[in-house]
Amino acid sequence: MTGLQEALTALWAPESVAIVGASADPAKTGGRPVAYLHKHGFSGGIWPVNPRVAEIDGLPCYASVADLPGAPDVAIVLLGVERAEAAVRDLAARGCKLAIVLASGYGETGAEGKARQDALRKAAGNMRLLGPNTIGAMDLSRGIVLSASGALELRDIPVGGISVASQSGGILGALLSRGAARGIGFRRLASTGNEADLDIADLIAAYAADPGTKVIAAYVEGIRSVDRFRAAALAARDAGKPLVVYKVGRSGAGARAAVSHTGAMAGEDRVYDALFRQVGAIRAQSFSDLLDLPAMLASGRRLAGGRIAILTSTGGAGSLVADNCGMLGLEVPDLDAATADTLAGLLGHDAPMTGNPVDLTLAGVEPAIMTAATQALLDAPGIDGVVVVVGSSALARPDVAVGAIRAGAAASQKPLIAYVSPHAPHIVDLLNREGVPAFAAPETCATVLSAALPPPAPGPALQPVATCPDNLPGGTLTEVEARALFDAFGLTSAQGRMVQTATEAQEVARDLGGPVVLKLVSRRILHKSDVGGVRIGLSAETIGAALDDMARGLAAQGLPRPEGYLVQAMVTGGVEMILGLRRDPQLGPLILLGAGGVEAELWGDSTIRLLPLAEGEAAGMVADLRIAQRLAGWRGAPAHDVAALVGAIEALARMGVALGHKLEEAEINPLFVLPEGRGVAAADGLVVLRE
Amino acid sequence: MTGLQEALTALWAPESVAIVGASADPAKTGGRPVAYLHKHGFSGGIWPVNPRVAEIDGLPCYASVADLPGAPDVAIVLLGVERAEAAVRDLAARGCKLAIVLASGYGETGAEGKARQDALRKAAGNMRLLGPNTIGAMDLSRGIVLSASGALELRDIPVGGISVASQSGGILGALLSRGAARGIGFRRLASTGNEADLDIADLIAAYAADPGTKVIAAYVEGIRSVDRFRAAALAARDAGKPLVVYKVGRSGAGARAAVSHTGAMAGEDRVYDALFRQVGAIRAQSFSDLLDLPAMLASGRRLAGGRIAILTSTGGAGSLVADNCGMLGLEVPDLDAATADTLAGLLGHDAPMTGNPVDLTLAGVEPAIMTAATQALLDAPGIDGVVVVVGSSALARPDVAVGAIRAGAAASQKPLIAYVSPHAPHIVDLLNREGVPAFAAPETCATVLSAALPPPAPGPALQPVATCPDNLPGGTLTEVEARALFDAFGLTSAQGRMVQTATEAQEVARDLGGPVVLKLVSRRILHKSDVGGVRIGLSAETIGAALDDMARGLAAQGLPRPEGYLVQAMVTGGVEMILGLRRDPQLGPLILLGAGGVEAELWGDSTIRLLPLAEGEAAGMVADLRIAQRLAGWRGAPAHDVAALVGAIEALARMGVALGHKLEEAEINPLFVLPEGRGVAAADGLVVLRE
Repeated sequence: MTGLQEALTALWAPESVAIVGASADPAKTGGRPVAYLHKHGFSGGIWPVNPRVAEIDGLPCYASVADLPGAPDVAIVLLGVERAEAAVRDLAARGCKLAIVLASGYGETGAEGKARQDALRKAAGNMRLLGPNTIGAMDLSRGIVLSASGALELRDIPVGGISVASQSGGILGALLSRGAARGIGFRRLASTGNEADLDIADLIAAYAADPGTKVIAAYVEGIRSVDRFRAAALAARDAGKPLVVYKVGRSGAGARAAVSHTGAMAGEDRVYDALFRQVGAIRAQSFSDLLDLPAMLASGRRLAGGRIAILTSTGGAGSLVADNCGMLGLEVPDLDAATADTLAGLLGHDAPMTGNPVDLTLAGVEPAIMTAATQALLDAPGIDGVVVVVGSSALARPDVAVGAIRAGAAASQKPLIAYVSPHAPHIVDLLNREGVPAFAAPETCATVLSAALPPPAPGPALQPVATCPDNLPGGTLTEVEARALFDAFGLTSAQGRMVQTATEAQEVARDLGGPVVLKLVSRRILHKSDVGGVRIGLSAETIGAALDDMARGLAAQGLPRPEGYLVQAMVTGGVEMILGLRRDPQLGPLILLGAGGVEAELWGDSTIRLLPLAEGEAAGMVADLRIAQRLAGWRGAPAHDVAALVGAIEALARMGVALGHKLEEAEINPLFVLPEGRGVAAADGLVVLRE
Repeated sequence: MTGLQEALTALWAPESVAIVGASADPAKTGGRPVAYLHKHGFSGGIWPVNPRVAEIDGLPCYASVADLPGAPDVAIVLLGVERAEAAVRDLAARGCKLAIVLASGYGETGAEGKARQDALRKAAGNMRLLGPNTIGAMDLSRGIVLSASGALELRDIPVGGISVASQSGGILGALLSRGAARGIGFRRLASTGNEADLDIADLIAAYAADPGTKVIAAYVEGIRSVDRFRAAALAARDAGKPLVVYKVGRSGAGARAAVSHTGAMAGEDRVYDALFRQVGAIRAQSFSDLLDLPAMLASGRRLAGGRIAILTSTGGAGSLVADNCGMLGLEVPDLDAATADTLAGLLGHDAPMTGNPVDLTLAGVEPAIMTAATQALLDAPGIDGVVVVVGSSALARPDVAVGAIRAGAAASQKPLIAYVSPHAPHIVDLLNREGVPAFAAPETCATVLSAALPPPAPGPALQPVATCPDNLPGGTLTEVEARALFDAFGLTSAQGRMVQTATEAQEVARDLGGPVVLKLVSRRILHKSDVGGVRIGLSAETIGAALDDMARGLAAQGLPRPEGYLVQAMVTGGVEMILGLRRDPQLGPLILLGAGGVEAELWGDSTIRLLPLAEGEAAGMVADLRIAQRLAGWRGAPAHDVAALVGAIEALARMGVALGHKLEEAEINPLFVLPEGRGVAAADGLVVLRE
């Protein structure tokens, strides 16, 4: 099979392009690709294939794929679903490296379509496929347009550093037309459609390796391979290229609003949240963010801190931006004395202008003042970035206003963005083209500035410290077996021992000292509480009778004789938590940590991470929770052993990695986090292994 | 003084307009008002005043206000801050009803400016003022434009049913230019600026009374009189006119993120949230919502329920809209059989099309199919509203696409909106002008549909059932006094009695039965826990010694002898809540209800309402809280006495209204909500009265 690298080289830098099903009418979809390749100045071979036409746009047209003058690097298949498979077979036979299949009517339509898609994949043989159900691909930096999308009718598409990977062709077209209208520069764009072969991860990996790509924007409906997506995203991160992802499917998972038992807590969408966060991708929270964040990040400028100055000639709009900055945790601090003096000097004021937003009022219309004020704010030592508000006064002479802002920004490397208050798309366009990211929503200004803060440094993956024990049974382990397994990975349970008789139970209770708990141990009885198989608050004096009573009760219910009884120290004090491991059907094993106790679900205070965990992520999980405040010592109460909790999370993560697919589910509920220095104690544990 | 009604009639329907400081150069700010009045076809008297010019735009120019041919209904004062006061004085003397003062440099600049503003107000005498620091007012339906705003240079401002009240002139201009570009029709717009006289509440009240206004949009930085704002907003609600408010100042109140002690909990911004909610106003969550929500609501169409159908020819965009609808709790249900058959018939499909979003694919480009499909969805009995997605295919023939949608919508009264996926401002404009609210963000589609759901029916204000007790002392009441006051309004405290001696304490404890609490009672000791003034878990046997011990302890600390000791039944079981009343400095008294207990602040589970409370609002407060699930009977636990909790909230609300300004603060913490039928018990209470 053609290597991925070779296929992608064919896609982005082809020497020859076959267009199968080309039409001589440029108004028809089938006529567009030849027209677009000509229009965007493609200099390689353009080989239309159509048995009914002799010539298209001055080019000879070939009757069949077999008649082509050579093996095309890449082919666009414009035929419908009925004829695409034969064309793909012919192209593969001709030695084409990659075919782009536009037709729909495959996997998206159901079982029959899925069979057609499998047949198409098979017909491709060693040739790679983009699609089917794609609008194709384009590299605007070289004028290579392998698409029939109407979005390419646009006159003046700015070229820049943003590359787009989309699972939807319509969304790709929308992004291209919206971005072009705002002067946002693109480099490469492709839609993967049904992903019979190449998928979104392949594109992200290719963009990560492409020197001309500065930022990657991805529209995702579902991830086919979490491992390959993770690898691609991490490659982008390592290459210093921000990856911005818009993922649909948030509301199907209203689970986020749902509450905190292991099953319900890890609703699907929050698992994607965890994935994106763990691979350093930025999740676009609104569709417009999928353009706005890349537009900001493509500037290459990053905030060193969160202190923002706002320069305005119109008070209300300055307030809007400041309010939204504050809501995202950015600061809008007063200015230092030197800067305040400089500004006062510019405006001929007596008093220093320490206020922020800086309201230049009508004087701000004067270009020299605007430029000097912008410079002064960018130079201010206590300011990390600047928002310039463009008001109605700029409408009269947009070029002057834009020039003044640009001149002010030139000498600094700090981020500078513009908020355009009136309806003025031409000013937004002009600013973006001049390298000043410009936005028409005050919320967006705050969002993009937040995204320009330095990301946390990623830690290395946790190193394993234990290997998988041999001869593990399948199914649900008894609590005693689960305790042993947790113990093997360093996860401490409350002290205790399995016994068979009342006398043994009394001995263990005496050894343990304080109050104890008695639980039945049985692989055949799943819900031990429901059958009277748990007694708490016992002592050496009372446990014997309790055990006999429990045994009688089980027998009376016709239940199988338990394998034994667990006598365990009753944990008191400490903070109750839930720690669990489960599998997301799409994204694999994940760790869940939440506040425990009877009201746990009420507060929904939980967080998840996918495996594998990196160093520092367990501590990050604890910090995510509101209960972290209580763990740290709430209102004068003593602090709890957070280090031991972090250790327990990491132990479970290591166990998950070591056991791999063998481990279906594990849960410790409650896990008591004891006062500082006293560790944690698992008071109950569940492990389900694959049979 | 000129009545408000008369002044507003002068503003919106003047027979004569004086323009003081008019310039003969229409390019100058001072030249704009005459030019705008001419351009928009004002037919009344236009009287420019300028001693240095004889004629402006064909009109005679007067040398002074005194020379005017009559008393102008309204005047625009274009002069700077130095000369505006004299002009205002002259206009008042001439009998003008309302002057619009554009100059800035008043209250917004500090104390000196504030003095200038007071002088201006005084100079106006009986004449009313709009401003200073305003851009004026306009009634686009009659071509009355009393402004110098550059935003009015726009060629083609659509006229419609939206009236705008803004405290910022720049924001007014931004809204006007943004709305006009999108085909959103406005009626009246005014900015109140510094509000030396007319304020935002006056404008809202006037719009509520204006038959031509269908929806009111307000930009608010602060509310000067909560009572007048409330009255105006309620008048709008009673007139069936939605009021959409954008209020800045959310992040100054990061208080919303803050946690739940009475003081911290009622951060300023959430008090505004409560106010808007209580008066039936819709708070715009983003700046663009301030245009988008009115654009939707001005259509007059309302959803009967939350079931939305989405019609698309481009799958990705349909998913975007569906996902966002789901996130706001709207349903995107499968279609009924009859509708599914109709759609299949339209597209020549064999299988019924029950899926939603309905993907017409490329067939949707055909106008007849688009129209029929739109009609079918609007006619579907299980569908309350429809979103039509406009894809790139519409770019070629926008008029045809828009016509097809409009034809489909004509026969129904259900809401129909459009989501425009590619960059196509001309299509958005055309759709809005044709009466189909159209939006370019999928999030907005969901937001505006949610806002089109029927608002909850408002309840009447709570009737008083108790009057203010006479001879209340000032300052912090003792717990015994507070208990008596709460009791007078029907708020039950835990059983108990004040005693003086150990013997009396033993008697009371015996009478009460179970465990009791002993607390010191003193107006001079504020923090009784801190001085050992609270003992819990006592019995008739132990309380005597405890009282003597407490007395000795207080004496040893040199504290004043307490007025007595409260012996109170120790409440166990039930759910701990906090119920309080406090005053917001801007918006007045409010009731706060929250989950109680030691971790209350951790979960931040609280809600507020301003006084006066309407019927049903106390139950709404309970429903706001996550702890409501526990009150209702959490996971099989018994339900608690929610009716009694609602009664307690209403009792405190009545107490707040009855005591009025006398009541500074009240708090019951904890208030135990006991199992159903057993009521509530205030276990500790604080009341602070004004001295």
